[in-house]
Amino acid sequence: MGKAITHVGYIGLGIMGKPMAGHLLASGLQLSVWNRTRSKAAELDSAGALVLDSPAAMAAHGPEVIFLNVTDTPDVEAVLFGEQGIAGTARPGLIVVDHSTISPEATRRFAERLSASGVTLLDAPVSGGDVGARAATLSIMVGGPAEAFARVKPLLEIVGRSITHLGPVGAGQTCKACNQAAIASALLGVCEAMALARREGLDLEKMIGVLGAGAAGSWQLNNLGPRIAGGDHAPGFMIDLMLKDLAIVADTARQRKLPLNGVSLAESYFRAVAASDPAGGRLGTQAMAKTVERLGGFTFADESGVA
Amino acid sequence: MGKAITHVGYIGLGIMGKPMAGHLLASGLQLSVWNRTRSKAAELDSAGALVLDSPAAMAAHGPEVIFLNVTDTPDVEAVLFGEQGIAGTARPGLIVVDHSTISPEATRRFAERLSASGVTLLDAPVSGGDVGARAATLSIMVGGPAEAFARVKPLLEIVGRSITHLGPVGAGQTCKACNQAAIASALLGVCEAMALARREGLDLEKMIGVLGAGAAGSWQLNNLGPRIAGGDHAPGFMIDLMLKDLAIVADTARQRKLPLNGVSLAESYFRAVAASDPAGGRLGTQAMAKTVERLGGFTFADESGVA
Repeated sequence: MGKAITHVGYIGLGIMGKPMAGHLLASGLQLSVWNRTRSKAAELDSAGALVLDSPAAMAAHGPEVIFLNVTDTPDVEAVLFGEQGIAGTARPGLIVVDHSTISPEATRRFAERLSASGVTLLDAPVSGGDVGARAATLSIMVGGPAEAFARVKPLLEIVGRSITHLGPVGAGQTCKACNQAAIASALLGVCEAMALARREGLDLEKMIGVLGAGAAGSWQLNNLGPRIAGGDHAPGFMIDLMLKDLAIVADTARQRKLPLNGVSLAESYFRAVAASDPAGGRLGTQAMAKTVERLGGFTFADESGVA
Repeated sequence: MGKAITHVGYIGLGIMGKPMAGHLLASGLQLSVWNRTRSKAAELDSAGALVLDSPAAMAAHGPEVIFLNVTDTPDVEAVLFGEQGIAGTARPGLIVVDHSTISPEATRRFAERLSASGVTLLDAPVSGGDVGARAATLSIMVGGPAEAFARVKPLLEIVGRSITHLGPVGAGQTCKACNQAAIASALLGVCEAMALARREGLDLEKMIGVLGAGAAGSWQLNNLGPRIAGGDHAPGFMIDLMLKDLAIVADTARQRKLPLNGVSLAESYFRAVAASDPAGGRLGTQAMAKTVERLGGFTFADESGVA
């Protein structure tokens, strides 16, 4: 397993990365950080992290592990292989742990390219949202070589509660894609069931209670159903990010020649929310209900709307 | 509340009705039964129930409550208003508790017609399947007047574990329709997520474990996911019955001018399974995966099928 890791780097200090990097620093590790917008590193700087000028500078500085937490596939590619990227200065033996949610297929290509420099890539997308990032209760889905996984697992346990090694590189991203696919259709089912209930004049709170206890029960119903009933569309998880993730699902399915009609339908409902309002994409995923409302000519919030 | 009920009737001794009637008899109630196929009453006959010749004969015999557990809207209509139906001989004050899953709108019409004879109808569809019927752990969703509900609630507690009064007559059926709508889309999400996982070569057992613990978690995933992975299509709940229930959802939505595209898509996947094989409709709902398999040109059971 090698000696314990003492020095890590963190790239991407957004709503997820900043609290996760903070947990690593608080655990006693030496921490280097880089963020495209440097001001977001100020808090960690004050807490004792070293703020570097580029991913290349970070890799040259010699951390044993570098964590990435950026948005999409091109962002990961730029951080790894751009002009000031990690690959140019990385020493053999470096492990890169990518917490971003990106394409499984691109992940496999990136791992192949990094292996030429003796760098190992683990894909490690998370679920649990910003709440889970702050509370260090994330689920982490890991793909990559078992030895590298074993080496970084103690670090992952600092930021997550459930750490699963799913298989070779890309397997973590595939699992995350499956997660988002299952969520999208389950949420559409919740929205439509609630629409039927609402148009028939049913008490939505009672209905959620009954359905949640049985074969229709789901995290989506129990957690987002009450928000839909109350017209509360604050994020949780933003529609723009779900659309990014569902594009990964769609690309992966297309490469596999796999029709996923349910996911496609659900994606179109999210897209309609994002299209109907300049701020629509920044609403929570439960705002999918707005598409169901518009198609049905009613709103959940309007209690007098029963025909 | 009136004095305690001592004499009840039961119509429809199928896979659900027979064990439920058995629980009522075992609780010490006087029980009259009727079933279209008389032989299905033999066991209850031996256990002390009185087997009658028709719903009309049953109503004339004087039970305070008659339970119905038949298949579809026309079956309920025939038992209530047919030539040998309950309505012709019922005494004022009779309460009819309909455990069948039928149309909310028809239920409201039936209640109106029965009220002319002083008979009260409660709709009380159940979820929990034959396992729940045998174990007396059903969820029961009740619609109708609060006084009648209060009067029969002790009887419902003999056959169910969770008894919810949802509102006026029809509200129980509406809630059941919503339940089936939510299930249909959630299950499609599970099938498609698992198809993506399978085609990407992911370990399905691990994937179900990770998804089940988070925001993609659902009863459908946790209970039917492993059966889909193993190609086990034994019912549980049969596709033919789900199709019957989704026809109720579709009719109700049509009356409300409510487009439910997710439910329509899921229904078409069930229908394709029923159409592709003479025995398809008698498979469990998880056999929806067969449609996803056929569209994607793979099978879950064939472990070597990854492209």
